[in-house]
Amino acid sequence: MNSFKANILDLEENDVYPAYIVVDNNVFKEVTPISLRDKLDFDGIIIPGYIDSHIHIESTFLTPSSFAEAVLPLGTCSVIADPHEIANVLGVEGIQFMIDDGSEIPFDFYFTAPSSVPATEFESSGAVIDEEDIKNLLKKDGIVGLGEVMNFSGVINRDPSIISKLKIAKSLNKPIDGHSPQLSGNDLKKYSYWDDGLKIQIQQIYNDSIDAHDNAITNHTNQSSCNTINTNTISTDHESSSFDEAIEKKSLGMKIMVREGTSAKNMESLFNLKKRLELLSNQDFLGKISADDFGSILTNPIFDFLVTDDISPEDLIKGHLNALVKKAIELGIDIYEAIKMGTLNPSDHYNLNSGLIAKGRVANFILVDNLDDLNVRKTFVHGKLVAENGEVLFKRKKSKVINNFSLTEKKLEDFEINFNSLNDLDSPIDLKIKRINLIEVFDGELLTNKIQETVQIESGVVKEDVSRDILKLAVVERYGNNNVGLGFVRGFNLKEGAIASSVAHDSHNIVVVGTNSYYMARAVNLIRESEGGLAVVSSTIEKILKLPIAGIMTNKSIKSVVKEKLELNEIAKSLGVSLKSPFMTLSFLALLVIPSLKLSDKGLFDVDKFELIDIFVND
Amino acid sequence: MNSFKANILDLEENDVYPAYIVVDNNVFKEVTPISLRDKLDFDGIIIPGYIDSHIHIESTFLTPSSFAEAVLPLGTCSVIADPHEIANVLGVEGIQFMIDDGSEIPFDFYFTAPSSVPATEFESSGAVIDEEDIKNLLKKDGIVGLGEVMNFSGVINRDPSIISKLKIAKSLNKPIDGHSPQLSGNDLKKYSYWDDGLKIQIQQIYNDSIDAHDNAITNHTNQSSCNTINTNTISTDHESSSFDEAIEKKSLGMKIMVREGTSAKNMESLFNLKKRLELLSNQDFLGKISADDFGSILTNPIFDFLVTDDISPEDLIKGHLNALVKKAIELGIDIYEAIKMGTLNPSDHYNLNSGLIAKGRVANFILVDNLDDLNVRKTFVHGKLVAENGEVLFKRKKSKVINNFSLTEKKLEDFEINFNSLNDLDSPIDLKIKRINLIEVFDGELLTNKIQETVQIESGVVKEDVSRDILKLAVVERYGNNNVGLGFVRGFNLKEGAIASSVAHDSHNIVVVGTNSYYMARAVNLIRESEGGLAVVSSTIEKILKLPIAGIMTNKSIKSVVKEKLELNEIAKSLGVSLKSPFMTLSFLALLVIPSLKLSDKGLFDVDKFELIDIFVND
Repeated sequence: MNSFKANILDLEENDVYPAYIVVDNNVFKEVTPISLRDKLDFDGIIIPGYIDSHIHIESTFLTPSSFAEAVLPLGTCSVIADPHEIANVLGVEGIQFMIDDGSEIPFDFYFTAPSSVPATEFESSGAVIDEEDIKNLLKKDGIVGLGEVMNFSGVINRDPSIISKLKIAKSLNKPIDGHSPQLSGNDLKKYSYWDDGLKIQIQQIYNDSIDAHDNAITNHTNQSSCNTINTNTISTDHESSSFDEAIEKKSLGMKIMVREGTSAKNMESLFNLKKRLELLSNQDFLGKISADDFGSILTNPIFDFLVTDDISPEDLIKGHLNALVKKAIELGIDIYEAIKMGTLNPSDHYNLNSGLIAKGRVANFILVDNLDDLNVRKTFVHGKLVAENGEVLFKRKKSKVINNFSLTEKKLEDFEINFNSLNDLDSPIDLKIKRINLIEVFDGELLTNKIQETVQIESGVVKEDVSRDILKLAVVERYGNNNVGLGFVRGFNLKEGAIASSVAHDSHNIVVVGTNSYYMARAVNLIRESEGGLAVVSSTIEKILKLPIAGIMTNKSIKSVVKEKLELNEIAKSLGVSLKSPFMTLSFLALLVIPSLKLSDKGLFDVDKFELIDIFVND
Repeated sequence: MNSFKANILDLEENDVYPAYIVVDNNVFKEVTPISLRDKLDFDGIIIPGYIDSHIHIESTFLTPSSFAEAVLPLGTCSVIADPHEIANVLGVEGIQFMIDDGSEIPFDFYFTAPSSVPATEFESSGAVIDEEDIKNLLKKDGIVGLGEVMNFSGVINRDPSIISKLKIAKSLNKPIDGHSPQLSGNDLKKYSYWDDGLKIQIQQIYNDSIDAHDNAITNHTNQSSCNTINTNTISTDHESSSFDEAIEKKSLGMKIMVREGTSAKNMESLFNLKKRLELLSNQDFLGKISADDFGSILTNPIFDFLVTDDISPEDLIKGHLNALVKKAIELGIDIYEAIKMGTLNPSDHYNLNSGLIAKGRVANFILVDNLDDLNVRKTFVHGKLVAENGEVLFKRKKSKVINNFSLTEKKLEDFEINFNSLNDLDSPIDLKIKRINLIEVFDGELLTNKIQETVQIESGVVKEDVSRDILKLAVVERYGNNNVGLGFVRGFNLKEGAIASSVAHDSHNIVVVGTNSYYMARAVNLIRESEGGLAVVSSTIEKILKLPIAGIMTNKSIKSVVKEKLELNEIAKSLGVSLKSPFMTLSFLALLVIPSLKLSDKGLFDVDKFELIDIFVND
């Protein structure tokens, strides 16, 4: 025998592959991988198309079709989008807009039915999604689950209006997404095991889950837990910001979405090597398993999905799931498991029948250059090449423009906080100094602090103090009643002017921070003229990124949006703003379900107490 | 596009391979590995042929050609054999016999030049290998190194007769094999860095080696240390029985042969997971590396080769390197690294130019069924199929018979220990009880204990005590002077009869243990009749496995040898013997270089003191 074909073990590359071998005069004359002889149609490696299993598309300011155009070249073929933002503006009509707009493009859009519209009763939203809406939405094929259940205190206290929505999802066998930042102990158990009708003792379920979790750690090669959906519990969480928080939720059977978005970056905490070693060294199987198994367990992600949740257009243009998968690998996660977190795992959880290159699966796949770089070269949806070398291969139609916007022109006086108007009758009217509650924000964090400071009263008006970074903050209702909620905030470091946004989670009223009432009114009126947008004003400049679709999106391409957005950020920076993403931070200041202190059009909101509070501290 | 060929990432198998893909109606209709479509000539995987880099073929009782016939079906294509045993019997003539006999068969035999013949001056061997012999041997192509340097105290004390042999190896650039059981600290350094002529401070070399060792641990993917031979040091050790012992030697730059033979099984100690974790947790790179790297480091063997050293025919028939590689994998070693320890690593150390399926390498390879089972299906030497399904495909020639045997018939009196003959003039002649030094043996260990016991004197003759398992042991010189060394041993638990062997490391005189002198003489005479063999005698049975070639080997096939050997073991067991391999244990009782107490034809030998000692304890 002089030549033959066989699988060979290559001890230089530590690999096995079929090769063509020639032996001559006792030695190997040729050893060539068959794949090099048998001409392949592509250089590189085909992997499943990425799936972002929890994203609010609206945070990119792009419509679904524009979003798909942006992410297809990055290898994303599917998202499970929670159209919670547009639902707060336009209700079911808004959700239908997302579905219709997404259907115009070769991309697999899936949606969840938003469970929490409005998020709380302490704000004015543009629409309400009720039980009947939920039932109708969940019956649709492309709606794969109930969207994140944000009112955790409502679930814990078994508020019938929330529980009834969970029961609808359960009856239709669709998974329920959770949202439980910093929840733990009994509250977390009561949240996750929401269905008292089961009459199973929570402790027993808890113990079973711990066992299941231990098994999940041991049985590292098979993320079998991804194939069962338990509609008796909240099935996922994407709000864990520490390893211990995520492990507690995982131990209750929740699948953990490791979030790496713009404001919230949790991946480094959740893939922390020292924490993982600690956890493993407490397992009694150590010493019973081989070193190889130990290594595999250490590189097992433990958690389930990679998601962005909220990502800005300027971050998205740099990378989507492709970037998250690479970061997970850099943090020590096994490459196969990292890719599964963005492909197979979410597909199986939400029954998408994609995420795997295997017979019978939907043919969504991408061509990467190699497994070290994972650069996306081509993207295929339903077997068709739709993007190549950073560009899509089709022409996108313009999105329809719909909105819900009814706002009268604002005046300077609308943003003044009059001391005597605030019913604080116990204090003498001539007091010049007053103690207030205010919001403190941090760069890159959704969580805020509730702090106290003193401010001066001049002629009955409470004054901001720019030198001490105590700025006025307002939320202006934009759907008809035009309430103006007022408060103070620290952390922006704006020195002159105002920045405003009609993207303001979750009700998407207009949120504005400024160094005086004049600038604030001007910024809000600028947005009013376009019926939506991000605006910055100062004595020398006025600039707006128009968002005419529902006041939160635009029909433009990501490149154009990013260009305008970066200009806005530059202007904000030139005005003193020290936050990296001031508009992202601003847009979350009206989100009443993330601790600790927030502002709605109805006033200051203490998230921990879950009630509106007064600006002034009553000593 | 309906069908194409590309490399795919298979997330179910965690593998990458070229596949033929058909997409139809949005879904994958077919995903077939190209290797399944492109008909291969073999099922299974081709891996390099195994290399046992340290073995004494004589311990299998088989001649080289018979040995090759036995191991080719197991996947072994090469050995680096130290013909130290036959050299002690027949000198250079014996070594030439091994080379000639091995050349008759398709198998790559390599040899080392035995450095230590005789092993000590405290025994009578059949031959001597002097400096001139070493020089002539090392100049031959198939002789790839200097055989294990057993007289470590000679090296440590710079005995010129030993150092001169090391210098010859150095001048010819051939690696020097070590043998340093339980050596550590300064003695180990002086042993390893034997060449004072280098004038490099040992401490500096030591520090450099520690660095190199740390690098070796970190740089786990590249066992580059295997490609450099430092002839200034002892390059290998195969005697480490604990992890710490091996690590100390490794830190001095020695390559560690992980030995798993019949009497000595060190693999479990050297691949101990807890020890490896301890070592790693002391490295300051922990926390700086990814979990994936950590896992890879943990599965890195640290040590270099897998060897058997001495393996009995009944063990060899069950498996050779194929079994060692599987055991290493079961103990947590990465499969690629485990296979390298039995292929690429020894090839590169001894410059064999095999051990890898790559252009220009010698085409020795085997076909295994899969990487989980690693069952050997076919063996190829120099590209030719030579064994298949457990059988060789050629007919072996009979080996030549050579010997060195000159022994007169033994009588009962030759084995009596007369008290007054032992010059113990200080003690009263009528003392009935005497304290003696005796050897204690342990199942599966080469190391013996030096213990003390009391025995009775009857009519001037020192009596064995079968009830307390104090048996007489003798070593009978068989080359001419016919000295009889006498002593006592505990651990065999023989209750009636004697067992004897002309395989008796390293001088291969006849070693015999018995319950009385009559049986001992009978067993030795039985061996005398065949000029070599293993014998067992009792009141009812006499049985011998004849070893007429040098008194240590036979021309028979492994199957026939194993059948006879197992019968001998069964008889020994029926006579009360509790050791699993009594003949192996017996054959090492005359090996004066392994601690603690041994017997030669010249008498009891204290290995730690490295001197002959009296049987009787002088209080």
